[in-house]
Amino acid sequence: MTTVALDQAEAVRALAAPDEAEIAQLDAWWRANNYLTIGQIYLQGNPLLREPLRSEHIKPRLLGHWGTSPGLSLIYAHVSRLIRHTGQEAIYLAGPGHGGPALVAAGYLEGTYSEVYPEVSQDEAGLLRLFRQFSSPGGIPSHVSVTTPGSIHEGGELGYVLVHAFGAVMDNPDLLAVAVVGDGEAETGPLEGSWKGVSFINPARDGAVLPILHLNGAKIAGPTVLARKDPAEVRKLLEGHGYDVIEVEGSDLPGMHYRFAEALAGAWGRIRAIQQAARGGDWDGERPRWPLIVLRSPKGWTGPEKVDGVTVTGTWRSHQVPLSGVRGNADHLAVLESWLKSYRPEELFDDAGAPVQLIRDLAPDGDLRMSATPHANGGLLTRDLDLPDFRDYAVEVKHPAAERAESTRKLGEFMRDIYRRNPDSFRLFCPDETNSNRLGSVFEASDRGFMEHVTGDDTAISRDGRVMEVLSEHNCHGWLEGYNLTGRHGMFATYEAFAMVSASQTVQHGKWLQEAKHLPWRAKVPSLNVLLTSTAWRNDHNGFSHQGPGLIQVVLTQRGDVARVYLPPDANTLMSVADHCFRSRSYINLIVIDKQPQLQWLTMDEAVEHCARGAGIWEWAGTDDGTSDPDIVLACAGDVVTMETVAAAQILRERLPGMKVRVVNVVDLMTLIRPKDHPHGMSETQFTELFTDTVDVVFSFHGYPGAIHQLVHGRPDQDRFRVRGFIEQGTTTTPFDMTVRNRASRYHLVMDAINNARRLPRGATELKRWCEEQLAKHEAYVVEHLEDMPEVRDWSLGDWAQRG
Amino acid sequence: MTTVALDQAEAVRALAAPDEAEIAQLDAWWRANNYLTIGQIYLQGNPLLREPLRSEHIKPRLLGHWGTSPGLSLIYAHVSRLIRHTGQEAIYLAGPGHGGPALVAAGYLEGTYSEVYPEVSQDEAGLLRLFRQFSSPGGIPSHVSVTTPGSIHEGGELGYVLVHAFGAVMDNPDLLAVAVVGDGEAETGPLEGSWKGVSFINPARDGAVLPILHLNGAKIAGPTVLARKDPAEVRKLLEGHGYDVIEVEGSDLPGMHYRFAEALAGAWGRIRAIQQAARGGDWDGERPRWPLIVLRSPKGWTGPEKVDGVTVTGTWRSHQVPLSGVRGNADHLAVLESWLKSYRPEELFDDAGAPVQLIRDLAPDGDLRMSATPHANGGLLTRDLDLPDFRDYAVEVKHPAAERAESTRKLGEFMRDIYRRNPDSFRLFCPDETNSNRLGSVFEASDRGFMEHVTGDDTAISRDGRVMEVLSEHNCHGWLEGYNLTGRHGMFATYEAFAMVSASQTVQHGKWLQEAKHLPWRAKVPSLNVLLTSTAWRNDHNGFSHQGPGLIQVVLTQRGDVARVYLPPDANTLMSVADHCFRSRSYINLIVIDKQPQLQWLTMDEAVEHCARGAGIWEWAGTDDGTSDPDIVLACAGDVVTMETVAAAQILRERLPGMKVRVVNVVDLMTLIRPKDHPHGMSETQFTELFTDTVDVVFSFHGYPGAIHQLVHGRPDQDRFRVRGFIEQGTTTTPFDMTVRNRASRYHLVMDAINNARRLPRGATELKRWCEEQLAKHEAYVVEHLEDMPEVRDWSLGDWAQRG
Repeated sequence: MTTVALDQAEAVRALAAPDEAEIAQLDAWWRANNYLTIGQIYLQGNPLLREPLRSEHIKPRLLGHWGTSPGLSLIYAHVSRLIRHTGQEAIYLAGPGHGGPALVAAGYLEGTYSEVYPEVSQDEAGLLRLFRQFSSPGGIPSHVSVTTPGSIHEGGELGYVLVHAFGAVMDNPDLLAVAVVGDGEAETGPLEGSWKGVSFINPARDGAVLPILHLNGAKIAGPTVLARKDPAEVRKLLEGHGYDVIEVEGSDLPGMHYRFAEALAGAWGRIRAIQQAARGGDWDGERPRWPLIVLRSPKGWTGPEKVDGVTVTGTWRSHQVPLSGVRGNADHLAVLESWLKSYRPEELFDDAGAPVQLIRDLAPDGDLRMSATPHANGGLLTRDLDLPDFRDYAVEVKHPAAERAESTRKLGEFMRDIYRRNPDSFRLFCPDETNSNRLGSVFEASDRGFMEHVTGDDTAISRDGRVMEVLSEHNCHGWLEGYNLTGRHGMFATYEAFAMVSASQTVQHGKWLQEAKHLPWRAKVPSLNVLLTSTAWRNDHNGFSHQGPGLIQVVLTQRGDVARVYLPPDANTLMSVADHCFRSRSYINLIVIDKQPQLQWLTMDEAVEHCARGAGIWEWAGTDDGTSDPDIVLACAGDVVTMETVAAAQILRERLPGMKVRVVNVVDLMTLIRPKDHPHGMSETQFTELFTDTVDVVFSFHGYPGAIHQLVHGRPDQDRFRVRGFIEQGTTTTPFDMTVRNRASRYHLVMDAINNARRLPRGATELKRWCEEQLAKHEAYVVEHLEDMPEVRDWSLGDWAQRG
Repeated sequence: MTTVALDQAEAVRALAAPDEAEIAQLDAWWRANNYLTIGQIYLQGNPLLREPLRSEHIKPRLLGHWGTSPGLSLIYAHVSRLIRHTGQEAIYLAGPGHGGPALVAAGYLEGTYSEVYPEVSQDEAGLLRLFRQFSSPGGIPSHVSVTTPGSIHEGGELGYVLVHAFGAVMDNPDLLAVAVVGDGEAETGPLEGSWKGVSFINPARDGAVLPILHLNGAKIAGPTVLARKDPAEVRKLLEGHGYDVIEVEGSDLPGMHYRFAEALAGAWGRIRAIQQAARGGDWDGERPRWPLIVLRSPKGWTGPEKVDGVTVTGTWRSHQVPLSGVRGNADHLAVLESWLKSYRPEELFDDAGAPVQLIRDLAPDGDLRMSATPHANGGLLTRDLDLPDFRDYAVEVKHPAAERAESTRKLGEFMRDIYRRNPDSFRLFCPDETNSNRLGSVFEASDRGFMEHVTGDDTAISRDGRVMEVLSEHNCHGWLEGYNLTGRHGMFATYEAFAMVSASQTVQHGKWLQEAKHLPWRAKVPSLNVLLTSTAWRNDHNGFSHQGPGLIQVVLTQRGDVARVYLPPDANTLMSVADHCFRSRSYINLIVIDKQPQLQWLTMDEAVEHCARGAGIWEWAGTDDGTSDPDIVLACAGDVVTMETVAAAQILRERLPGMKVRVVNVVDLMTLIRPKDHPHGMSETQFTELFTDTVDVVFSFHGYPGAIHQLVHGRPDQDRFRVRGFIEQGTTTTPFDMTVRNRASRYHLVMDAINNARRLPRGATELKRWCEEQLAKHEAYVVEHLEDMPEVRDWSLGDWAQRG
């Protein structure tokens, strides 16, 4: 791992020792970027300070974050120089995303911003627009966001910069992700849990992440832990995470330029050496010690040292707006003016107001500019997956409820073949549960990826593996986001209850996708596919902590243009849904289905048709002849509740044949919403065809009942929907008892049907009493049998018929 | 920090060198606990192996986790010995909570289990019950849970063992929290983010956490990162986190007993030395290097080495049930029998089936047993807060909408005085936003707590501080949970949008509280109070990533016996709500109110009455004379939407005086639910008194509209509720524009009122048109003014009247 090609060694040497002209160029670019940053925070007029600064040039409300910005800009300048020297493809992820104005300024200096937003032109008028739009109504957010060219990382919710960076470089061998970690965000759990990405990155096949831990000492209102720890301890911590630590500290100029250039050159040389060795066969197989830079520079560096006698630079006081009340304070106004002038804007912008040639020349060419890299607009690089025909994975269904199968196993086989056909653009991410979730067939095509020590007792795990297992929902989710946003496809599969661990990531990614749809220059990316399995209803053995269908509730809050929720009731519907999701773009696709053996209902052809409609009448399950409205509609969405619904319909058919029962199954939950609120929403005509407009509906739902109440709002006579679902009645019990505790068992549904039917045939009262007896028997049985209850555990529709 | 009292040095020496009799006792206890663990997983008969093991003795379904259990049990035995030697108060937190049977067994051997659950008696019948109940219907979960005596830590969702431990020892100087960290959970973000608890623990005032990182090598289906990293790297990592690392490795016996005893003695001695120095004034003020033990022992230690020729012990195959199919496999049955017999149960249990005296003697006395410590049943230790009269923090309100105030500032003053009156039982937890959230008055009573280096430029931060700020929602939430569950009071204050980061903790803690209510021996604990501020509607400047009222949605899914959501519209209602929450027990209290200056509506007396009812008619705001039903009800819940509603009512009063408008404000969201579904739910009579049973209701809600649709389900004619709320239309804009984008502005509400009123007076059409004009003007204004718009930003009811 030690041979470095000579030309590369040469490049590293040149990079490490910039000449004076290069330093002057770097410094000019940096000053320009700092100037533009401050301009965005403060100015609404006089953008080039070509007249004396007056109150009316100052924005009435001062917003934005100065403190982190100079550091972000310094790094940007030096990485740009690196790219120019080496042709390295690089993407920049700003963990301290509130340093938004610095990244916007960088895109502007590189010309990308004006290419994407022509109205923000390369002249004084454009400059003014750049300043005025920042954090202003109708403008852009104060954080790095989807509107920022070159970004795949929203800077609002902190902690995900490394997971995004690692996801971005997977199967992206030529990409370097420069990931700046702020010392505030470094305190978050997700960030601390993400350093270990290096344990999963293969230097031969993946690109590299260069983390730059930027310790500027403070967050909003106080110091940070890492900035105040003994530096030797910080070094140990990072070495313990597996990195080769390079430290740069200070505020002296141009000294810091020289030292940072040297550090960056060293880091890049080390990365290339690791990659060349791994790719050239000269690799011992040990996990490389990837470089990491610790940059210690003052918070608010180059800003006003003191304001009103109080130290500002280097403290939390420079986190946001170091000088406040500028409009009404002549002293502050003067400080601002001299601060701005300290960057010598007259040297940085030409007469028209455009950046001077020296500054423009720092930018790499075209797509190599970090603000223009297609890796940060991954839709441009997205290729359709080469998908096998999902129909080939059908479960044979001769008639409904005849077979039981682990539906997700079929999905595992489908994904195995997707892995084979798409060896560099598809990955499964899962917290150590691939086998548990019955998706283990993927291991026939790929091991788990792992760069730490592997032993002979291990199975399906190697350096070459591309199935990503780490016991961290945050890592799995975030890696997939990074993978998606750079144009590749995947799936995050997790236990339903613990999907709430990464719920905020689902929310934030949804917001990213929503915003991206408003920007014509952002190309659509592969959808974020989330499979929830090991569901509430079948976590009877694990108990209450494992029972929670909360993520559906969360996804339902997102806008209709991104949120999709699918509840396939069996294997063939799952296959059809999965195929659809893998083909889709820029959605959050939530798929919920349990992994346990379950009854199969539909043939593949029926499944395809059912999924295409999203919801439909299961005529074979009911007694509805279609000639007139039924007496009751039994609707269902979700696998276990579908079984209970079909069983209830069977009880009614056999024991109350005079009642006309219609069974409706819903696969695509969003079809329930009115079309004005969701593109999948069925028309009122279709809705009425399924649910009528007056007959009561007993709706059995996989998740919390409130979800259905909100979805059918505005549909004809919504009061008639009685919803059964998970009502937080969980414990260690049997699957059937789960439905009883949550009042969603077949017996409850039968009683609901009788209580709400339009018309009651004779025998209804007796049937209700019979149901009550069944439930009483069940209760007695549970109380009597502390030990396992195989005959209740193994229930199924057939079993029911026998037991009944 | 070096002087150790002589008697303590003596104790450490004795502890470090157990004699043979002690080793024999430790080993007997350990064997007994392992035996009981395996019994729980496998046996439903023949609990003491007093007859040959037969198929029917084996449970039909094998559940549970063996792999981590022997390690958990070994640690438990040794800590029990430590307690007996030293009288140390200790609590045991099992991070690998799926080792539930080991902890249940320990409680049983200590006698606590039978005290709490008398039916699980100290004899063969009780033993059988212990085995049969485990992970069985009607029994107990397979994980450590609320049903496990001695636990404050549910073992389902991984990652929170250290945050709970650190929270438990805050202001608990005599407590030692032994926190076992599994190497699986050590991969999670929340766990990795929680090592830094030592940077916040004051050795003089707080107790100590002893983390024991148990590296047994594997998780469900593969190796763990920390187990497979170079051990030197792991040591660096932990030293980097600030610990003094003590390593114990092996599987040899009794060698491991000797080595672990020595390690534990060393750790305890170090902890006591740190504490004595700090408490005796002999402390240099540097953050201590607290000890941490790394225990490397084989997964499934003492289990069958190989099964069917495949290595099991030491691999992931022993994670759950190492021997499967025992019932139908004579070989496996024989392996199980000899495995069980290897612990020599005949030596461990007496004729009656009770643990022999030798084993019983290892248990500490009474409450010192870790399974019986009142710290793990914190309600027993809970004292009411000494609360000042919240009425003393009133904002003076001469008439509604005359004043603006930052409502949370008053709460800060209230909490300042709570800090002063309760110097060891109240803390505020907040991710670096105490000042930002206008709660900064607390700093008059207490600094932020911080054990790393503090400089002269820092403010309100010191070793002695008890306001807990760390940029990690996971840490803040988890610390408060640990603090609550050990009987102390507090508040977690956070930005509304980022409350989703810790949403899964809210869910899991809610489940804990729900389950605890079913256990008579669990005393009620202080409620988990969560204040959401910096809300969606007023994050106009930060943009879309900061706009998300999702946590309300999450809390609404919890059961009525724990979930509480309050939306006080102003300062005085906030004070009344906060007082109520601080007095309450075992709830999740979610309080949502923004921090920005906002109009004040109610005097303190009115606020108290309003909050006591939870919802009420604001007669002064409407034109409803109370003699008959109004033409329309304008309802609201939440601060900004209340302002828009009152403004809409004002427009209607002035411009359409013939219309009878009733304004209803809801503070306690749960009053909307039917009383059968929530104890706060108002009766149908009360509901009808407020909302009538036929008049349309335009309901303006702080959160997602779907929440109200689900809450009013089952109320008279729910179709008539038209809900406005946050519909994910966010960006960087003005507060008023936020209401416009989400169609919840005063103009939208007026139009809604006109569109849905029972009766329309003349002029309604003109007023609708006028509203449309206002909105068009607004749109034009936003488009025109890229820069700041002070006159729209500074909107208020008064401004509106002027502008209108």
